[in-house]
Amino acid sequence: MPSFEREFDKLFNPRSIAIVGASNLPGKWGSMMPLNMIGGGYRGKLFMVNPREKMVLGFPAHASLKEIDEEIDLLVVAIPARKVGDIMEEAVEKGIKNAVVVSSNFAEVGEEGTQLERRLSEIANAGGITIVGPNTMGIYSASSDLCCMGAPVYPLKGSVGFISQSGNLGIQLMGWGQRRGIGFSRFVGSGNAANTDIVDFLEYLGDDPITKTIILYIEGLKDGRRFLDAACRITPNKPVIALKAGKGSQGQGAVLSHTGSLAGEFALFRGMMEQAGIVEAETTEELVDLAATFSALPVPKGNRVGVMTLGGGWGVAAADVFDREGLEMATLPESVIEELDKTLPKFWSRRNPVDIVGNVNRANHFKVLNALASSDAVDIVISMGTLLGRNFWIENMLKTTIRPLINMIRFHTTRLPLFQLSILKGFREAVSRRSESNPEGSGGINPSEALQWRDSVFISHMRELMREEKKPIITVAVNEGERSASSHMRNSGIFTAATPERAVRAAGKLATYARFLSSHRK
Amino acid sequence: MPSFEREFDKLFNPRSIAIVGASNLPGKWGSMMPLNMIGGGYRGKLFMVNPREKMVLGFPAHASLKEIDEEIDLLVVAIPARKVGDIMEEAVEKGIKNAVVVSSNFAEVGEEGTQLERRLSEIANAGGITIVGPNTMGIYSASSDLCCMGAPVYPLKGSVGFISQSGNLGIQLMGWGQRRGIGFSRFVGSGNAANTDIVDFLEYLGDDPITKTIILYIEGLKDGRRFLDAACRITPNKPVIALKAGKGSQGQGAVLSHTGSLAGEFALFRGMMEQAGIVEAETTEELVDLAATFSALPVPKGNRVGVMTLGGGWGVAAADVFDREGLEMATLPESVIEELDKTLPKFWSRRNPVDIVGNVNRANHFKVLNALASSDAVDIVISMGTLLGRNFWIENMLKTTIRPLINMIRFHTTRLPLFQLSILKGFREAVSRRSESNPEGSGGINPSEALQWRDSVFISHMRELMREEKKPIITVAVNEGERSASSHMRNSGIFTAATPERAVRAAGKLATYARFLSSHRK
Repeated sequence: MPSFEREFDKLFNPRSIAIVGASNLPGKWGSMMPLNMIGGGYRGKLFMVNPREKMVLGFPAHASLKEIDEEIDLLVVAIPARKVGDIMEEAVEKGIKNAVVVSSNFAEVGEEGTQLERRLSEIANAGGITIVGPNTMGIYSASSDLCCMGAPVYPLKGSVGFISQSGNLGIQLMGWGQRRGIGFSRFVGSGNAANTDIVDFLEYLGDDPITKTIILYIEGLKDGRRFLDAACRITPNKPVIALKAGKGSQGQGAVLSHTGSLAGEFALFRGMMEQAGIVEAETTEELVDLAATFSALPVPKGNRVGVMTLGGGWGVAAADVFDREGLEMATLPESVIEELDKTLPKFWSRRNPVDIVGNVNRANHFKVLNALASSDAVDIVISMGTLLGRNFWIENMLKTTIRPLINMIRFHTTRLPLFQLSILKGFREAVSRRSESNPEGSGGINPSEALQWRDSVFISHMRELMREEKKPIITVAVNEGERSASSHMRNSGIFTAATPERAVRAAGKLATYARFLSSHRK
Repeated sequence: MPSFEREFDKLFNPRSIAIVGASNLPGKWGSMMPLNMIGGGYRGKLFMVNPREKMVLGFPAHASLKEIDEEIDLLVVAIPARKVGDIMEEAVEKGIKNAVVVSSNFAEVGEEGTQLERRLSEIANAGGITIVGPNTMGIYSASSDLCCMGAPVYPLKGSVGFISQSGNLGIQLMGWGQRRGIGFSRFVGSGNAANTDIVDFLEYLGDDPITKTIILYIEGLKDGRRFLDAACRITPNKPVIALKAGKGSQGQGAVLSHTGSLAGEFALFRGMMEQAGIVEAETTEELVDLAATFSALPVPKGNRVGVMTLGGGWGVAAADVFDREGLEMATLPESVIEELDKTLPKFWSRRNPVDIVGNVNRANHFKVLNALASSDAVDIVISMGTLLGRNFWIENMLKTTIRPLINMIRFHTTRLPLFQLSILKGFREAVSRRSESNPEGSGGINPSEALQWRDSVFISHMRELMREEKKPIITVAVNEGERSASSHMRNSGIFTAATPERAVRAAGKLATYARFLSSHRK
């Protein structure tokens, strides 16, 4: 490993960027990189370098790096591999300290490429340049609106730092994250890592004030000891979540032919994660789920979960994975049960999970959640079946009015006016009876309460409750699936899971991290 | 169990339906049930029964069942529990053979309800009435457009039959299925199952010509032996997929308080599933994934998988779960490798998974998939990173043009005209160079090939290939996630998975079923 001092602040907050190989040709790296930087809102200086053009994307094209008079904080290289070494020599002369090399055909393609990469890192090491890549998809930095990436992904700004040993996978996971409403602080696709180690970036993110949660996609480690030390320093302050590839023999084979990394024995790595308090994600989907969970929710004190469910089946589906995730169905104290007796129909189950048995009174949902969240017997709350999805009312309104109406016209034409009269009569009756109580819980919806059912009302309440009780509340958006769940999360400080099982999984990981923190503090 | 002959054909294809408790009040079961039937397109006769109304939803209201002159194939009951027994007596007199009882507060709420339910089933058994429920969310039947359910879910018509011991969960999973493009033939929410066993429905679906795939959500079995026998008869002809709830002690507790079922020892049930060739789904999400997989794809001959991936990281993520799912990364014969040598850049990995190393020539993707699918060494094909999602082009176009344009106006106003000139120049050059070959694979996109990138082209090709080779091809819609994946599946005979790991999972379950079939045929 090189001995020079890295200047990561210039990498993540460059005041000027030179793009060697800048191009007007659509689809070329040399065109996608600057377009994405402009599209991402980067406001520093951009210098295009291309000896065969006068102008690139509206900026004057320079014949070489030397021709640029000003200081360059970050070099982006998008030219064929065999030419990159010479450019790096020019960069050393110019005193550049950071380079993102997106060019491929280096060590990943055999002996010739390995030679080129060796020369590249020798030059960079001697000249004190940190190379991201080669064969990288680039980096992202929220603090300078820097989308220095080969794909048009403009992440939401937030607190999740992401280091990925696969650039492509990393960028696509950021795309998932964006749709899930997860905000990112930094991203690094480490590529071939010519003269870096992911630990370099891990250490930087550990100290980075805008990064509060760190996620990692790892194929192999160069220096396990150093990784462990760095992780141990960080995890007491920030959660670190890792997806380790190369689990079985077939996965290890794929890793080898992908980045040439030796995946190593997975059992060893898992032991290291446990020791360092790193939270393990088992799949790509889970890595994104956990990024959302840990960046939005407070860490619980223990593993006892209170569950509220509208629909008993969901409660069962959730409870079914409690054992596997190391969670405990909280035993509700008598005081909580008495509290719930006041709110729920007399035939409620009087135990956890709390099935609210079809109770559609919104105020009652909040009472149940408050009772669970405020109980000392509960560390984590999961709420299911009550978040409806952004378009639920509109969709349902259309379904329950338009479709029957159309079919009345098609199949019962002569009854149409009477149908409309009936609907009107029913609605008027519902309004006039809105204050009646309904002891058997089987009666219609109170129209005056409909606005309480908006998701925004529910989410505000959850946020407020989390602030008061300092306990994580996980909502499950079972009506609408992931897409709708996501639309709510955007900067809202909540986590909505797409399924009950994924909610329980997230709760289990929170509890695991809580256990690590409390054992660490002893 | 009752000894009378069930008349399920009348249940699933009723020519006339009477709704007792029919109501105009929005949100009431008595209003939602007929509205959903009308909305679903049911064209048989509807009779509303409500002594306190003259007219319900445009139909004349009858004071009682007796007042209806015509024959009733199906009775729907939506009145308080204590009144249901009397109605059932009237139904016996009227010669009705099937009833869907949505009323709750029966055996699920204690001794009083259990008494009511006992009386109900005695009457029904003596009178030869099959009761779906009580405490059910209803049934669906594609052959008669019958959405006899308590929620406005109008499933796509298709070949998946679904029996669920939780109505709420079942209906919401159908909602997921609908968004995933899965077509259903029948649905039964069995509720308290007063005088039925889920095996009754399972046997019916086993013989049902429009049902090709059966999915089950099971909390507990009344008669394990009978279930096993029925399943063993069906699975050689139709795949049966089951999600069994009540796995650990905490899940069993939740089952008990939900439907009062004894979940039983899960290990026993799993043994039974293995013996009967039932495919196990471990989560609600997987039940839906597998319904999609088995209803869309042919059963493979073995477990050897050929993987094509655009983006090496996805290949690793997939390979990583091969061991767990009992799959084998197919060893590519020399002939296939030579075939691929002609298509892929010279530095390709020359092994499976086939990373197409950033090759964006659409025709090449098809060549690779053809080579994999036609090889005798491959039983299943997984294709990743190549299905873009319905709005991909529009979104990408907006991202790569509009956002940079806006930011040029905001931050580099004076360069705007030059920027536009550059873009134009680049595009014209790309068009003029479209026929140039690009040996290093780093060059721009060929604009004339853009239309080949439409998902519809890809899907047609996959379908054609599956028809020719009779092997399942699973596509992963990693760019867009589940929502977009779904939009493609609608009646298209393909299965798109939301993540690489979920694709591998589906492939593993296909291979498991294939193994069962081949051992069964021996």
